[in-house]
Amino acid sequence: MSSPKPSVKIAVLGPGTVGSQVVRLLTEERDELSARVGAPIEITGIYVRDLAKDRPGLPRELLTDDASGLIARSDVVVELMGGLEPARTLILEAIAGGASVVTANKALVAAHGPELYEAADAANVDLYFEAAVAGAIPLVRPVRESLAGDHITRILGIVNGTTNYILDEMTRRGLDYEVALKQAQELGYAEADPTADVEGHDAAAKAAILASLAFHQRVALEDVYCEGISAITSEDVIAARETGQVIKLLAIAERAGDGVTVRVHPALVSVDHPLAGVHGAFNAVFVEAESAGGLMFYGQGAGGTPTASAVLGDIVSVARHRAIGGKGPLESNYAVRDVLPITAARTRYCVRMAVEDRPGVLSAVAEVFASHGVGIELVRQVPGQTHAGLILSTYAAPERDLRATVEGLRASDAVAEVKSVLRIEGE
Amino acid sequence: MSSPKPSVKIAVLGPGTVGSQVVRLLTEERDELSARVGAPIEITGIYVRDLAKDRPGLPRELLTDDASGLIARSDVVVELMGGLEPARTLILEAIAGGASVVTANKALVAAHGPELYEAADAANVDLYFEAAVAGAIPLVRPVRESLAGDHITRILGIVNGTTNYILDEMTRRGLDYEVALKQAQELGYAEADPTADVEGHDAAAKAAILASLAFHQRVALEDVYCEGISAITSEDVIAARETGQVIKLLAIAERAGDGVTVRVHPALVSVDHPLAGVHGAFNAVFVEAESAGGLMFYGQGAGGTPTASAVLGDIVSVARHRAIGGKGPLESNYAVRDVLPITAARTRYCVRMAVEDRPGVLSAVAEVFASHGVGIELVRQVPGQTHAGLILSTYAAPERDLRATVEGLRASDAVAEVKSVLRIEGE
Repeated sequence: MSSPKPSVKIAVLGPGTVGSQVVRLLTEERDELSARVGAPIEITGIYVRDLAKDRPGLPRELLTDDASGLIARSDVVVELMGGLEPARTLILEAIAGGASVVTANKALVAAHGPELYEAADAANVDLYFEAAVAGAIPLVRPVRESLAGDHITRILGIVNGTTNYILDEMTRRGLDYEVALKQAQELGYAEADPTADVEGHDAAAKAAILASLAFHQRVALEDVYCEGISAITSEDVIAARETGQVIKLLAIAERAGDGVTVRVHPALVSVDHPLAGVHGAFNAVFVEAESAGGLMFYGQGAGGTPTASAVLGDIVSVARHRAIGGKGPLESNYAVRDVLPITAARTRYCVRMAVEDRPGVLSAVAEVFASHGVGIELVRQVPGQTHAGLILSTYAAPERDLRATVEGLRASDAVAEVKSVLRIEGE
Repeated sequence: MSSPKPSVKIAVLGPGTVGSQVVRLLTEERDELSARVGAPIEITGIYVRDLAKDRPGLPRELLTDDASGLIARSDVVVELMGGLEPARTLILEAIAGGASVVTANKALVAAHGPELYEAADAANVDLYFEAAVAGAIPLVRPVRESLAGDHITRILGIVNGTTNYILDEMTRRGLDYEVALKQAQELGYAEADPTADVEGHDAAAKAAILASLAFHQRVALEDVYCEGISAITSEDVIAARETGQVIKLLAIAERAGDGVTVRVHPALVSVDHPLAGVHGAFNAVFVEAESAGGLMFYGQGAGGTPTASAVLGDIVSVARHRAIGGKGPLESNYAVRDVLPITAARTRYCVRMAVEDRPGVLSAVAEVFASHGVGIELVRQVPGQTHAGLILSTYAAPERDLRATVEGLRASDAVAEVKSVLRIEGE
C-alpha cells in the first residue's frame, strides 16, 4: 500500500446539546470512524463564543473563540450553532476556503439554502444537512441518491414531534387541546411559549427544505402556506375517529400541474395510512414516487443524541470524499417549476357545521357546493340540541373552489355555524 | 470547463420484469440521469439467453447472447437474471475486468455475498445491491452511510409481502390461514407452490443480507433460524388481539452478548409498534441504533417498477463514481462477532395451552416455568369446554430455557395440550 493518508481535520462550531454529543462520538469512535472514512480523522477545535464559560465533558484544549482561525485549518466544518448569524457567514467562509460543510441548522437551510448550495457547488465542496430535515431520520440520502432514478410526486411529513404528541394524546386519551399542550410542556416536549411548534412554523421550515430536496426546487419559507393545530378541538378528533380517520399536522409538498405547492396544516388521515401509526413525539415522512410507489421513513426528529447520529453519518460521507475522492450530488441544479399558492392545490375537505333543523336544509347546503363545482362524496347527519349537526366530505377540488364553498356556507341562512374545515390527505 | 466526459457504458444482464423496466427508464430518462451522474450514460447491450425469442418493448439492436463480450465493453454491469448461476460467474467476471456491479439478486447475495464483496473490494470497484434487500425501500444507503457513525443493535423486518398479506387478512378480516392463502394466490401475491414464502425461506435470505449489513458480519443462509407462518391459526390471531398485539412474520438480527442471532419466525408485536401498522403486501424494516434510536423504513418490497427504482438509484451512484471519482463503503470489512444459534437469543414467549380444569393446575404450570428459571409476567384464564384455556406471557429469557419450559409443559399431567408458542418482539 501507499504511505499513510493525511488525517481529515474536523472543526465543530457550537458546543451545545448536539455539538457535545458529536464531539463525544468523534472521540470515542475515532478508530472505527477513521476506518470507514479511509483516513484518520482528527478534531482540530471546537468554536465557543465565550471561552470563560465552564463546559464539562468537552476537552478544554480543543476549545477556541477564534472561529476564522479554526475554519482555516480544517477540511470539514460542522456547524451546530443554530440561528442565522453568524452561522451563515461562517459556513460561507468555510466553503470559500475549500472546506466541506455539515450542518444541522434547519432555520438556516430553510432561509438561505440556495445561497449555500450554490456556493458549495461553485467551490466543488460538499454541503450535507441530514440532521436539519428530520433529526435522526435518514431522508436526504434516500431522496437524493436512492431515488436518483425516480421522480417524487408528493411528500407528506409529520415533522414536528410536539404537535404530533399533542394530537396523539387528544386522539388516544381523549384529552382537550389545552390539557395535552400543558402535559407536553411538563414533559419537556413543548416550550413555555409553544408558538413555533403549535402554529406550524417549525414544520414550515422543514417543509421548505423537503420540497427543495424532492423537486430540485427553490422553495422559500414565505412560499409555504402555514396553519397550526391550536384550533383543533376534541369534537374534531371524535368526528375524525367516527369516520376511521385521525388528525395529523402534515407538511406537504406536491406537484400541482406544472408547479408545486408546499403547505403545513392539520389534516384528516385514514387510520389505514402508515402515517396514522406514528405516535407520540415521533416523526415520519411519507414519500410518493412514480416508480417506487409509497415509501415511509420514521424515527426521532429531535434530541441531542439522535441528531448527533445523523451529523456523524454526514461527517463520515464528506470526510470520505476528502480522503478517497468523490462528491455528493449537486444541490443547485434546479428545476424550473413554479411554487404555486395553496389556492392551486387540489384537496378534499371535511366540513363540520351546525345547521337549522328544518326540511330543505340539506338541499340548500348541497346547492352551495354545486354552485362552486365541488362534488359531495359523503354526508352524515348528527343529532344536536338547538341545531342539527352535518358533516360533509367532498371529492378532490381546487382549494380556491373549496374556500369559496366554505364562504358560501357561512353566508347561507341554512347554516348556523361552520364549526371546522379540515383537509383530507394521503389518498 | 474541460472537454466533455466520456460516457459511462452500462450492460444489463437479464431482460425480465425488472430488467425491461430498468432499460425503459435508462432510455426515457437518459438526459436527467446523465446530469445526475455527471457524464453521459449509454446502454451498451442487454444480455439474453435466447436471441430468437420475441421481446416486445426491448430495443432489438441492443440484444446480445454474448455475455462476456458485453461485460468486457462495459463500465457498469447490472445483473437482473436471478438465480445463482450464471449470475455469480458473470458478476465475478465483471469485477475482475474492472466493471462496477449493480444487482437485485437476493438469493445470490445471501448465498455468496462475502465472496462477491471481497472480489469487489480487491478490484476497487463498487458492488451495490439495494434492490436485493427490500425491493424499493432504501435501506442499504441509510444503514451503510447515514448510520456510519452509529451502532445498530437490532433489526426487525417485515420483508416478505406474501406472508404479511396473509397475516393481515387473518387479522383484519378474520380469515382462516387457508382462505387467506388462497386469496393471496388468486391475487398473484402468492405462488401456486407458496413454500418459499410461507415457510420463511425468502425472508431468511433477506435476514442474512440485513444481518451482514447491520453488523458488518458474515452471515450465511444456513445460520438463519427459520420458522414459517403455516401453523398460525385464527385462534392465535384472536388471542393476540385480546392482548393488544398482532402477529407478524419477522426477520430479526440482533446483538446477543458478543455475538449476533439471526432468525425468522412469526412474532407477537404490540399494536402500538410501528411495524403493526404495516398492512397488505407492504414491507418495512425497523432499525434500532445506539444514538439514533428506532428508525423505520417502509415501502414496496417487490414488483418490477418499484424494484427498478432501487436499481436505478444504484446505477446513478456507481456511474457517478466512474464519472467523477469516489467509491461506496467497503463491504468486506468484517467485524468478528460469532453468529450464535437461536437458543442463545433472549426473547419473551406467549404460550397458549389447554389445561385440566381442576385446582392446583396453575401452581403445577407455574412450577414448570420456575424450574427453568423463566419468569411469568401475565396469566390469563380462558373458559373452555372439555379443558380450560390458559395463556401465559413470560419475561425475557434465553430461548434455550424457554424451549425447555415448553418441553416441560408438554410432559406435565396438568397440561392437556400446548396449542401455540409465539415469541413477543419489538419491545
